[in-house]
Parts: sequence; structure tokens; C-alpha cells
Amino acid sequence: MHSGVFSEFDRACMKRALTLARRGAGKTSPNPLVGAVIARGGRVLGEGWHKRCGDLHAEAQAFEAVFSAGENPAGADLYCTLEPCCFTSPEKHQPPCTGLIIKNRIRRVVIANTDPHPRVNGKGGLALRKAGITVETGLLAEEGEELNRAFFTFQRLGRPFVHLKIAQTLDGRIAAGSSVRDCRITDEAAHRSVHRMRARHDAVLIGRGTALADDPELTVRLARGRNPVRVVLDSRLSLPLTAKLFNLPDPEKTLILCAAGAGVKRIKAVQNTGAEALPLEIPAGARGLPPAAVLSALGARGIRSVLVEGGEKIFSSFLREGLWDSLSVFIAPLILGGGVPCVSGLGIDSVAKALRPGGVKIQKIGNQILFEGKNVYRNY
Amino acid sequence: MHSGVFSEFDRACMKRALTLARRGAGKTSPNPLVGAVIARGGRVLGEGWHKRCGDLHAEAQAFEAVFSAGENPAGADLYCTLEPCCFTSPEKHQPPCTGLIIKNRIRRVVIANTDPHPRVNGKGGLALRKAGITVETGLLAEEGEELNRAFFTFQRLGRPFVHLKIAQTLDGRIAAGSSVRDCRITDEAAHRSVHRMRARHDAVLIGRGTALADDPELTVRLARGRNPVRVVLDSRLSLPLTAKLFNLPDPEKTLILCAAGAGVKRIKAVQNTGAEALPLEIPAGARGLPPAAVLSALGARGIRSVLVEGGEKIFSSFLREGLWDSLSVFIAPLILGGGVPCVSGLGIDSVAKALRPGGVKIQKIGNQILFEGKNVYRNY
Repeated sequence: MHSGVFSEFDRACMKRALTLARRGAGKTSPNPLVGAVIARGGRVLGEGWHKRCGDLHAEAQAFEAVFSAGENPAGADLYCTLEPCCFTSPEKHQPPCTGLIIKNRIRRVVIANTDPHPRVNGKGGLALRKAGITVETGLLAEEGEELNRAFFTFQRLGRPFVHLKIAQTLDGRIAAGSSVRDCRITDEAAHRSVHRMRARHDAVLIGRGTALADDPELTVRLARGRNPVRVVLDSRLSLPLTAKLFNLPDPEKTLILCAAGAGVKRIKAVQNTGAEALPLEIPAGARGLPPAAVLSALGARGIRSVLVEGGEKIFSSFLREGLWDSLSVFIAPLILGGGVPCVSGLGIDSVAKALRPGGVKIQKIGNQILFEGKNVYRNY
Repeated sequence: MHSGVFSEFDRACMKRALTLARRGAGKTSPNPLVGAVIARGGRVLGEGWHKRCGDLHAEAQAFEAVFSAGENPAGADLYCTLEPCCFTSPEKHQPPCTGLIIKNRIRRVVIANTDPHPRVNGKGGLALRKAGITVETGLLAEEGEELNRAFFTFQRLGRPFVHLKIAQTLDGRIAAGSSVRDCRITDEAAHRSVHRMRARHDAVLIGRGTALADDPELTVRLARGRNPVRVVLDSRLSLPLTAKLFNLPDPEKTLILCAAGAGVKRIKAVQNTGAEALPLEIPAGARGLPPAAVLSALGARGIRSVLVEGGEKIFSSFLREGLWDSLSVFIAPLILGGGVPCVSGLGIDSVAKALRPGGVKIQKIGNQILFEGKNVYRNY
């Protein structure tokens, strides 16, 4: 059932389904992005996509489109970017799509990716086959994989997708190191690109040091899209309440993760700003908040993707633990020759053991080089 | 006399002259690269270029070509990438070209760049004009400038052209920092590119630390071209004589610069290998060999361009002093998160004061990003 058996029309329909799926970007989490196309005899009868969490599934949307066009889907082919769901549960808003597909007498279902959700994971396809429907999987699987990297990461690794975003000089520095409020390393074009990244992630995360040094808003202002949850790692909850992060129009989107020992008074004070302070149980002897505990807490709140924006200690701890999936480094044409390195203390004692991101892409964004790579999950 | 007055044929002839000039790359120093084309009535009569130091000048070559084709250059136009020379001196091998041009009754001379040599610098053009020849300057001047950056730098700044070549990880490290002989940061494609750079410079230069850590040959093996002079900065002359640099087929091309205090015995020992040890008088209290003293010593030996290949201290000292012209940074897709930074101790305390190379070019070389920039000589 490799892609060789698929026709050009099949590919075109799946491409269309992927394009539709992308329309939900930033709105469906913790659900995946899904698109669906229903076609018969080389003609599209209807299409749909999952618009936001809680809304109709893509398949159901596509059937609605078929009906409102006065068509009958019986005997048609259904193209789904993701394996149709086949279960009900209290926290699930929609009925299983497999039932809908069977009821509407679809002849054949073409799927890009199997849904790794433990309650689907092939069972959706099986249910359809049992009902006599032809099921073919793997068409444009790579594009589908890319589309739902956050969702797949969460299903497979049990933690949110971690995207490290570093803005640095040519010599790998992220700040000059003095405490003066300094000008930015990267230019407006890079900032716009970062804002687009923010809009595509459920959360952005920084350390207390960066929150203090830059006093950022971490909102989406230079791109279209909703604000992600703003996460600050601040063990002792010592970030001043005058920080911009506590004084935004959507204070409930600021989440401060602290150690369980942070005082109740401080927690109250943070919560009075409308923000949330969440104490984490951390292992004895841990310095700062361990990335694994942080990701686990975020995952428990439905966060499926985190854009990690700094600083040095945060980048270093996520890289050291191997808890990252994607890396975007904006390299500005500046040399500081001192100050704060982007990463330190990884304990790598030879070039042979260096971290090697895979799937590298290089582009120019304004005055910056944007280096993008993926964690290829080798053993460090 | 801006380029607007030049015809398409003029431009084509000068482009050809620049192309011819490039053929001498790596062979003419301390002379500039020069190309010449003689044409009349839209037809090229002859062309020439300066092949190597000591050989005929480009203009003379072009006249020879005209004569051997049985043509007469009288009334023709001469295109020179550089202003023709107009003086004689004991260390100059060739007679002044202005005399030759006048004698051969050239009608018009078109020049890309004025020769900044103190004994030419406009006087060549003047001598021609006095003889009734039309002289036009500035055609493809930027390309000409690029062609002879080393020569122009020496004439204008009184020191060799300094090209810093850094091979680093994404996080700006040039080595893991352990003393183990480690694998290379950059790949074969980058090495080939570096060898091509070496062939285009009169000298390559490294510090003692790099000589010890990498035990490099600094020769041109992966590209065509002659070996440059290999310069090592080693104040105390303590590099072991077992180093590869002392055991190459052309030992006379290894030049160790040391402090005046380095023992006579050590100097003798180095010279016994066929290499040269040159003690520099350095200012009291100077740490290591100051870049200015180094460049002055190299310039005095006819070296017009130096490719500086490391390490951290060397890069940092040349950058700190502003004694650099060109910068090539190979960025490999690796993260070390520790080890040796490419540059340190520049004493820059804010991003606003960072060094900003101009004329930035970005390309991919093998797995590396190659960042190239120029010193725009702002005040640091």
C-alpha cells in the first residue's frame, strides 16, 4: 500500500486535504490538524477541515459540505490527512468518524497518517475494513507528519513538542551581558518571523533571567494569530509584578512555573494579577525546574507545543536532556566577542560527540541567517 | 567621467581585461593583478595580463599580442584594469607603461582603478593626457577594487590585507576544548574552499595554540595553486620541531614570528629545519605578539595578504585592534555547548557597539553556512 498505487487524482485530493488542514493552525490544539476531501468519479463532492478544538471533525465537515451541495456521498472516496477516529470518551466532543463514514456508504478511505492516539492507532482503519470499506494508508505521509509534528510528538513521546528558538550573533552570543537595557540582536524581519512561530505554538517559554533582562510581552503582534500561553520558569517566584508579562490585556495567558517551596504569599500575589502560578514538585537536589517536569506540567494542561525562547540556561537544559524536537537559530551579522553564550555546559568533550541537528534548512530572513534543524533522537 | 559615458563595447572590453587579470591570481604579489585589452573600431587587436611578479606588465603583454598578430596599435583604445605605471625604480622589473602607450600612439586609455601606489596615484593618467591621449577612469571600478583588495589595502593602509577565516559550530565554538586529537568541525567541501582561499593569499597565519592542537600543514592540497607562506605566532618559540609545519617539502615557507627575547639556541634549532624564525621587537608589556607588529613584519617581506586561520586569541586580537578587512565564517550544523569560543574578550558591553561586518554574503558550502563580510572601518 505504498504511494505507488495512488493515482494523480488521489495525490491531488490528499494535497488539497493537507492544505485545508493547515487552515486550523493554532486553533485545534490539543487536537491535530485534519483535512478531508470527498470525491467520486474524478470530481470533488465536498471538503472540510477541523476548524478549532470542540468543532466538527474534518470528515463530518466534509459530509456536511456534500449534503449542502445536494450530493450523495454513497460510493465515493474519502481522503483524510489522519486516520478517522473510532472511539467516544467524556472529554471528546465529537462522535467517532468511522460510524459516519460507514453510515454514508463511502467506498474507499485514503489516509496520510495513522493516528498514534492509543485509542485509535490502526483501530479506525480496521473498523472501516470490517465494514467492507477499502482503506489505503501512507499517501503524502511525510507532509502529514510535518503538519502535525506537535500532535505526533505528544502521542509518541508523551510530552509537548519542543521548538527551541535562538536569536544570536555570529559568534553565538545572545546578549552583551551587561545589565543595561540593550538594543535587539535581530531585526524586524526576524521578529515578524518569531511572532509567526508564536502563533503556531500553544505556549512560549522563557526563563526568569530573560524575563528580567528583556521584559518581553511574548505576544503575537507582528503576525496574525492568537497569543500563545506565556510560560516563565521562575523557581522562587521572584519576578517583579511590574513585569509586562503581568500587565497585559490577557493576564490569564501568563503562567509562572515555580518550585513547590515558593511562598503561598507570592503565589497569591501573582494570581492577583490575573496570571497563574503553578508550583511543581521537583526532585531533591535539582537545580532550577527540570525540563521533564516542566513539559509534564504543560502537557497535563493540554499544551502540545512549546516555543522555547531563552535564555542560555533554558536552552542548555533542554538540549542537555535531549528534550527538544526542532531548532531555529537566527544568526545576526554581528560579533560581540563576549557576553552570554547561546548554550553552555552541555558537557560534550569532543566534536565527535557534538549535537547534530538533522533535516537542516537555511534561509535568509532580513539581515539574519535562519538555521533550522530537527532532533534526530540519536543517543547523546 | 562616470560610467554613463562608456559604451557597451567599452564595458565588454574592461570585463575581458578583468577576467584576464584574474589569471594571475596568487602569482603576482606584491604586484597587483592587471589585465589589458587593445581594440580599435569595435575589434580586439590584442590582450594581455600580468602573469607573475617580474614578468611583463599587462599593457606590454597586450602590445606584444597586437604585434604578433601583425597589427598596428596606432589610434587604438587601451583598456587597463589599473592605471598604467609611470616610474622606474631599482626594485621594479619593468619600464613604465606610460612610455610604451605613448610610443605606440594609443588614442584613448580606459582605466578601472587609479593605482594608489604613491609614485603613480594619478600621475600615470596625467602623463598620458600630457601626450594628448584621452584618459577615462572608473569603468567597472568596483570589480577592479574587489580584484586587488590586497594590493589596494597595502597601498592605502600600509599593511597586508587581513582575511579572517573561522570554522565554527552553530554556537560559535572552534574546538571542544579537550586536549584529545578530535575530528574536524567542518567537512571536506569546506576544507576545499579553505584551500582555495590559501592559494589566493600570500600567507596563512595561526597561533601557537592552534599549531599545537591541530598540527596542521597549512598547505594547498585540495585545490590548485601554490603554497602560501605559513606564519605561526609563537612568542617563546616553543612549538616542538616535530610539528608538521617543520617537516614539509618546502620548509622555507614556514615562518615563525617570536618575541625578541626568544633564545638564540631555539632560533638556530628552528632554522636547522629549513624554516625561518623572525624575532619581533614588541612594546614593553605587550601580551603575545601585537597584530600591528606582525603585519608590519609581514608587509616588509612583500606579503600583501594574510589568511588568518585561528585560534581564539588570534581572531580576538586582530578583531580587537580593527586590523582585519575580510571575514569568512564557516558555520557547521553542530552544537558543542562548551569548549573554545571563536572570539572572546573584545570588551564590547552592548549590542549597539557590536562589530557589524558589511557587504554580507551567505552561501552553503557542503554542510556549512559560509558567512562572508567586510570590515567597513567604522570606529570601534
